Amino acid sequence: MYNISVIGATGYAGAELVKILVRHPDVRLNILTSESYAGKRISDIYPELNSICDIKLSELDINAVAESSDAVFLCLPHSAGMDTSAALAAKKVQVFDLSADYRLNDQALYESTYKTRHRHPELLNNAVYGLAELFQDDIAQADFVAVPGCYPTSVLIPLLPLIKEKLIDPSLLIADSKSGVSGAGRKATETTHYCEINENFKAYGLFNHRHKPEMDNIITRYAGIHTDITFTPHLAPFTRGMLSTIYTRSKADYATLISAWQNAYAAKPAVRILTDGKIPSVGAVAGTCFIDIALFKDGDKVIIVSALDNLMKGAASQAVQCFNIRMGYSSVKSLRPNF
Amino acid sequence: MYNISVIGATGYAGAELVKILVRHPDVRLNILTSESYAGKRISDIYPELNSICDIKLSELDINAVAESSDAVFLCLPHSAGMDTSAALAAKKVQVFDLSADYRLNDQALYESTYKTRHRHPELLNNAVYGLAELFQDDIAQADFVAVPGCYPTSVLIPLLPLIKEKLIDPSLLIADSKSGVSGAGRKATETTHYCEINENFKAYGLFNHRHKPEMDNIITRYAGIHTDITFTPHLAPFTRGMLSTIYTRSKADYATLISAWQNAYAAKPAVRILTDGKIPSVGAVAGTCFIDIALFKDGDKVIIVSALDNLMKGAASQAVQCFNIRMGYSSVKSLRPNF
Amino acid sequence: MYNISVIGATGYAGAELVKILVRHPDVRLNILTSESYAGKRISDIYPELNSICDIKLSELDINAVAESSDAVFLCLPHSAGMDTSAALAAKKVQVFDLSADYRLNDQALYESTYKTRHRHPELLNNAVYGLAELFQDDIAQADFVAVPGCYPTSVLIPLLPLIKEKLIDPSLLIADSKSGVSGAGRKATETTHYCEINENFKAYGLFNHRHKPEMDNIITRYAGIHTDITFTPHLAPFTRGMLSTIYTRSKADYATLISAWQNAYAAKPAVRILTDGKIPSVGAVAGTCFIDIALFKDGDKVIIVSALDNLMKGAASQAVQCFNIRMGYSSVKSLRPNF
Amino acid sequence: MYNISVIGATGYAGAELVKILVRHPDVRLNILTSESYAGKRISDIYPELNSICDIKLSELDINAVAESSDAVFLCLPHSAGMDTSAALAAKKVQVFDLSADYRLNDQALYESTYKTRHRHPELLNNAVYGLAELFQDDIAQADFVAVPGCYPTSVLIPLLPLIKEKLIDPSLLIADSKSGVSGAGRKATETTHYCEINENFKAYGLFNHRHKPEMDNIITRYAGIHTDITFTPHLAPFTRGMLSTIYTRSKADYATLISAWQNAYAAKPAVRILTDGKIPSVGAVAGTCFIDIALFKDGDKVIIVSALDNLMKGAASQAVQCFNIRMGYSSVKSLRPNF
Repeated sequence: MYNISVIGATGYAGAELVKILVRHPDVRLNILTSESYAGKRISDIYPELNSICDIKLSELDINAVAESSDAVFLCLPHSAGMDTSAALAAKKVQVFDLSADYRLNDQALYESTYKTRHRHPELLNNAVYGLAELFQDDIAQADFVAVPGCYPTSVLIPLLPLIKEKLIDPSLLIADSKSGVSGAGRKATETTHYCEINENFKAYGLFNHRHKPEMDNIITRYAGIHTDITFTPHLAPFTRGMLSTIYTRSKADYATLISAWQNAYAAKPAVRILTDGKIPSVGAVAGTCFIDIALFKDGDKVIIVSALDNLMKGAASQAVQCFNIRMGYSSVKSLRPNF
Repeated sequence: MYNISVIGATGYAGAELVKILVRHPDVRLNILTSESYAGKRISDIYPELNSICDIKLSELDINAVAESSDAVFLCLPHSAGMDTSAALAAKKVQVFDLSADYRLNDQALYESTYKTRHRHPELLNNAVYGLAELFQDDIAQADFVAVPGCYPTSVLIPLLPLIKEKLIDPSLLIADSKSGVSGAGRKATETTHYCEINENFKAYGLFNHRHKPEMDNIITRYAGIHTDITFTPHLAPFTRGMLSTIYTRSKADYATLISAWQNAYAAKPAVRILTDGKIPSVGAVAGTCFIDIALFKDGDKVIIVSALDNLMKGAASQAVQCFNIRMGYSSVKSLRPNF
Repeated sequence: MYNISVIGATGYAGAELVKILVRHPDVRLNILTSESYAGKRISDIYPELNSICDIKLSELDINAVAESSDAVFLCLPHSAGMDTSAALAAKKVQVFDLSADYRLNDQALYESTYKTRHRHPELLNNAVYGLAELFQDDIAQADFVAVPGCYPTSVLIPLLPLIKEKLIDPSLLIADSKSGVSGAGRKATETTHYCEINENFKAYGLFNHRHKPEMDNIITRYAGIHTDITFTPHLAPFTRGMLSTIYTRSKADYATLISAWQNAYAAKPAVRILTDGKIPSVGAVAGTCFIDIALFKDGDKVIIVSALDNLMKGAASQAVQCFNIRMGYSSVKSLRPNF
Repeated sequence: MYNISVIGATGYAGAELVKILVRHPDVRLNILTSESYAGKRISDIYPELNSICDIKLSELDINAVAESSDAVFLCLPHSAGMDTSAALAAKKVQVFDLSADYRLNDQALYESTYKTRHRHPELLNNAVYGLAELFQDDIAQADFVAVPGCYPTSVLIPLLPLIKEKLIDPSLLIADSKSGVSGAGRKATETTHYCEINENFKAYGLFNHRHKPEMDNIITRYAGIHTDITFTPHLAPFTRGMLSTIYTRSKADYATLISAWQNAYAAKPAVRILTDGKIPSVGAVAGTCFIDIALFKDGDKVIIVSALDNLMKGAASQAVQCFNIRMGYSSVKSLRPNF
């Protein structure tokens, strides 16, 4: 039984973590912190948790967390938790950081992407990238895991094995991604006002979204190839989920491409490879730990479609996969729908 | 040709007013004020207005507005515009105030309802209640019109004629209203975050919503009868529209009740009385100046259903109806869908 | 370990049952029937079930079902499964019928309500009404359970204890209910077309919905009091969930009313009683087995708000509660969120 | 004053046409046909039209239509109206056909794309493609206009001028389009059931959608260049609107590309070119006759975003533009928002 704390438990990813961990048979939820709601119960903020988890939220006290927790999940906004992560790591607490702060292994790239100085560059090289299926061996040994978010997961899970096997043309990679609104976080902004989202659909961040450098960085780390992916995020009128439509080229035939996936994801139950013309959809993965992927080919042209739940495989359930791997469990232990 | 200014033009009601007035053949849009966006164009905030209305927003300068405007529409939050309204009225500008500040003719009731002192009580008795169809004669003479909002309009249009004609039991009046989210305004709050509204449905303000006293106050002013209406607002996952389901009792037969409506609303094109079992719905009125009403009877039991667009008949189009009436036009001149 | 079959597994309630039962530790899913999709896998129709439940759907063969199943859940449209239920009951199979066919214990009332002859009136008196918390003792002994649907559950759970204890005025009962679209079933109709529902909100069935007689019938059976409830259903633009706003009167004080609920629902984990001004909402119960209830009082006036998931507590999870009770388990065994 | 009939007036495009034409000052709506609803009023089917247009629907009688109409709009499903169009054309009625039947000028391409024989190939060469801004001179002379649909309009308006001016690489054209549900038509199907669309997002028709050959065909006719566009449609959870994200390459600089658009669309008020980093969105065009387009560049990479209302610029308002051009009016006469 592990004592687990969640830092930033009232954001959407944090609350999703609580909902997963509260029923993990080997976890005791310990400290849940919230800057805005300290003193209230988590179930006051998320009434669906009434009678399921009524833990009182507290302000962050790093020492208290470190002393009482075997592992900590950090769900703070980018840069806001950079020192907290480092402090907990220094105290030898197992850290799963869901922010972007330790995902890149390149200080200069981090600083140019996030327009802020990295205050703990030494940790950048120790942090393991928590893409659960493809960095599993590293995660199993890691003291510090930087869990990737929804856009990179939706693009990298299908692309990395194909790039590594040199089956697709790395000079033509275009990812057109459509995200649900929960990906924008719980903070009230004009962007996420119901009336601005409903009956609307928008592209944003054209050529300048901060997850594009992360994708190229991880492709290089995983496959040793330098790329310049084109990535266009869109904001779509649904709460949970993400669909990425990815365009590339390949000389390999369909069966070879699918085989590469099947090799990479054998015995990886959170990745479902669809064949027979079936197309991933948001509805088939929402609320689950799955990422569904499929591939279509016409001549050299390749279209890949992937779908995942941005709060689950794109955040909380992937973080718990990392925890499970680190602790030696099945990677999907306690994850929805029914493992 | 009238010069018209809109104070608070970037809220939802203000923008809707701009969209209506920009095509009114006898109106020249003049000053549009915005506290938050002064210096930008209205079409920067509402891109649907690109090439339709690109007026630059300015900060409020009461003298400039008064000197250059024949009439002013105020769309400020309750209490925030109380002094502006009074100042403009003092300068003999025709005022249409869409806030709640001058709707009640009872200072004590205002102060107990809105928990704030009324700073211009002398104006309360001069202000005419802008329920366009039923206060038309007063509006035609009024220098200051307090335009009612969505909940009272949706409840009072069907009830007032029946209460005045003593056709229904005033001791049993229950209004169960369902509102679209735009009624909560454009300000970003947790309440209006997409993820809080979507796939959700909530009641709020049980027994204590501030529009309940307004309904009773207007019933007394219009029909001379004191009531204690039960009113329950709900927040529903759609942007525009409102449906009210109203429960009462009557000894009169169906035909008599419908006749009372037909008498009250003859030659009032914005009120559509549905018969033959047709039931009003939000979809049939969204985007229009209409309120649809229908009545169902079973023994003494009466159910009334009304539907309107909260930003139109519940705000902007009703305000323009008042303007049209005051200026001697058809009440629905220039109003959508196609008058 | 029980062998369980689901008749009509591809409707929304049937599929929800499959999703619950597939992870029930004491259940082996056996035969899943579907008239429309026999030969396909359930996961072809509900792709979220890929790798979770890939059972092949079959046509209904009553003998095969009876021989191989310890219990059967029927999810057929009203009247369509009337003979199947009876045939299975005759073969001594434990039946949980989610249709309306055996909910009323009055043949004449059934026939006038459903405009069809009841072909097995002898079973009407044997069938136990599966409102899990209030008919628990009967369910524990029942061979045939008629599981109630969403509207009656949402209204009866809060009302029955108060009526039985004579705490509210049974001559004034008004239930204004708002339902998600999945309640209308999976069959494609104009009514459920996305464009007819989205940005719309409708009342329907005014004074003539078939669940109104069921509510009165069960009130009489449970509390011995004859009522004439006013019930207005509405169709709201969300997929899952139901909120009922109920108006009545009481001379009792708030504490007494809440006590009556607490007595009725002590140790009934699927009923959550909200106090301290908290108001049930669809979002807090969607996807769960809960019904949340709260009560508000102003003088004699009472407003009750209840919320549940129409496919769960209003159908599938209530059916599984009945199964659990019958088999001697905790009523919420295996039910979401985390029991 | 022209007498106008609409064949297929109760589909979504037909009803939108009625809503536009009912307020066109030079149009008298004449015959509205409907196979399913003959005998009812159009306002029985579309209650928003109550008191606006209460014309009784009739079955199609080609002779009656031909004798009494100056122009006819056909809104029948593809292939279903092929003979009707031809018969009306033979009777010298001005025809605006919103189906796909006469959009391609190549019989073999039509037949391979639609898997059906073309029964009037001689008309294929006479029909003018009704992309209003780019085929304006032909439309002004045309007796028969084949009005394009939403996908081709959203892709061709931005691409055609750039391809014709040889400013982009025609060997790399990828259009990723997201459509609202009304584009799938009013017929109730599983695909358009609210619960299948809501909280879902899907790709479909990968490499085989029938609008892909139309795009290539029109590019060839307009610019004389053969292309093999990659086109992926997606179904998104909103009623109206379409956003296309288009990927290509260019050696030209941003200013040159924008100039090409400005030259093509000078004095074309329904096309709005966004600059200064503004990005088209569905919300800015829904309910209007506009198509908004913008272009982003990074090195040689080009991303174009276009947005339109699929029922307006993608169907009904484009058809009325064609009518206006043919009759010598401003192309946007009577079109929303406020021309």
